[in-house]
Amino acid sequence: MTDKGILITFSGPSGSGKDTVLNELIKKRDDTKISISMTTREVREGEKDGVHYYFVDRDFFEKKISSDGMLEYAEYAGNLYGTPKEPVDEALKAGKVVILEIEVQGAEKIKQKYPDVVSVFLMPPSLRVLEERLRGRKTEDEETINHRLVIAREEIRKSSDYDYIVVNDTVENSVEKFSMIIDAERLKASRNKKIISEVINNV
Amino acid sequence: MTDKGILITFSGPSGSGKDTVLNELIKKRDDTKISISMTTREVREGEKDGVHYYFVDRDFFEKKISSDGMLEYAEYAGNLYGTPKEPVDEALKAGKVVILEIEVQGAEKIKQKYPDVVSVFLMPPSLRVLEERLRGRKTEDEETINHRLVIAREEIRKSSDYDYIVVNDTVENSVEKFSMIIDAERLKASRNKKIISEVINNV
Repeated sequence: MTDKGILITFSGPSGSGKDTVLNELIKKRDDTKISISMTTREVREGEKDGVHYYFVDRDFFEKKISSDGMLEYAEYAGNLYGTPKEPVDEALKAGKVVILEIEVQGAEKIKQKYPDVVSVFLMPPSLRVLEERLRGRKTEDEETINHRLVIAREEIRKSSDYDYIVVNDTVENSVEKFSMIIDAERLKASRNKKIISEVINNV
Repeated sequence: MTDKGILITFSGPSGSGKDTVLNELIKKRDDTKISISMTTREVREGEKDGVHYYFVDRDFFEKKISSDGMLEYAEYAGNLYGTPKEPVDEALKAGKVVILEIEVQGAEKIKQKYPDVVSVFLMPPSLRVLEERLRGRKTEDEETINHRLVIAREEIRKSSDYDYIVVNDTVENSVEKFSMIIDAERLKASRNKKIISEVINNV
């Protein structure tokens, strides 16, 4: 990983509003880029290869794993999901802020591999608000909603291991806070070794 | 030290513009407070007790040291200088951002005692600019200026140990960056344990 860009993991419970915040953020900042996951699952209606996922077969995915080409991966319901390394590394080299929308365990795995990563957790203002948002979707039954709330509670408990917590009261506030985190991270001494040597050498 | 406020050490070479940046910052943000140092040296013309320093006698200062009442202290040219703990702790409890303008060694001492401290280094855009600023003061002779530049180079080398580096191109930019660092630090998970437990407990 290069000094130049910043790798960010972005997590939060289902219904916390991650997609909305991310989409507004990348509209606002052209130095940001969302990392696209790779999966072996079937393409669903409306999904496009290279936009929602890179859709590949199991053989291709497993070769990526064995050639150390994945940042992280996991298997759910018989399908592989993961983050391919190459596009992330390229974007970082170009100075971009690469954002990985990823669940808590995946974020932990990446933190172990890349201690330089910045982890951001999107927190619902309360569990009540989260429940309202999940019910508002009207796509899930009672059991699924209750299951999601149990998982949400667990994820929120683990948010103390993240670097930053953004409470998603409004999308606008969350985007502004996320943007501020990026600007502040760009000022970290650990990301500015070049400036230090330039000033010392009176360039 | 409390969770609520943030303790910041602020360093930079002589002539980097620390005072100007700090004065503008505290005008802009009423959640910030500059920590006032304590010293045993004589009051100089124009200086006020409790504004520029707390002026005390050596006996008082030494009692503060032995009762663990100083955050850090050092002796220069026969005089003691240091940061009294009590006003810092009170301001932190009240949720304030307390800023200590302090040299590199003092900042290191505080970092060892309070790992939660945020350290900010004000970097001149170049050594040439720093030299011009020092000459512009017209208060120091050639030898003093050269001595200050040698020390500046050493301090800049140590800036890699700081959390953040703010390149002081203009006062306005530096104040904005400093302010952004404070806002981002307020979002750190380590400073938001209360929010986590509130959301989990559905307050």
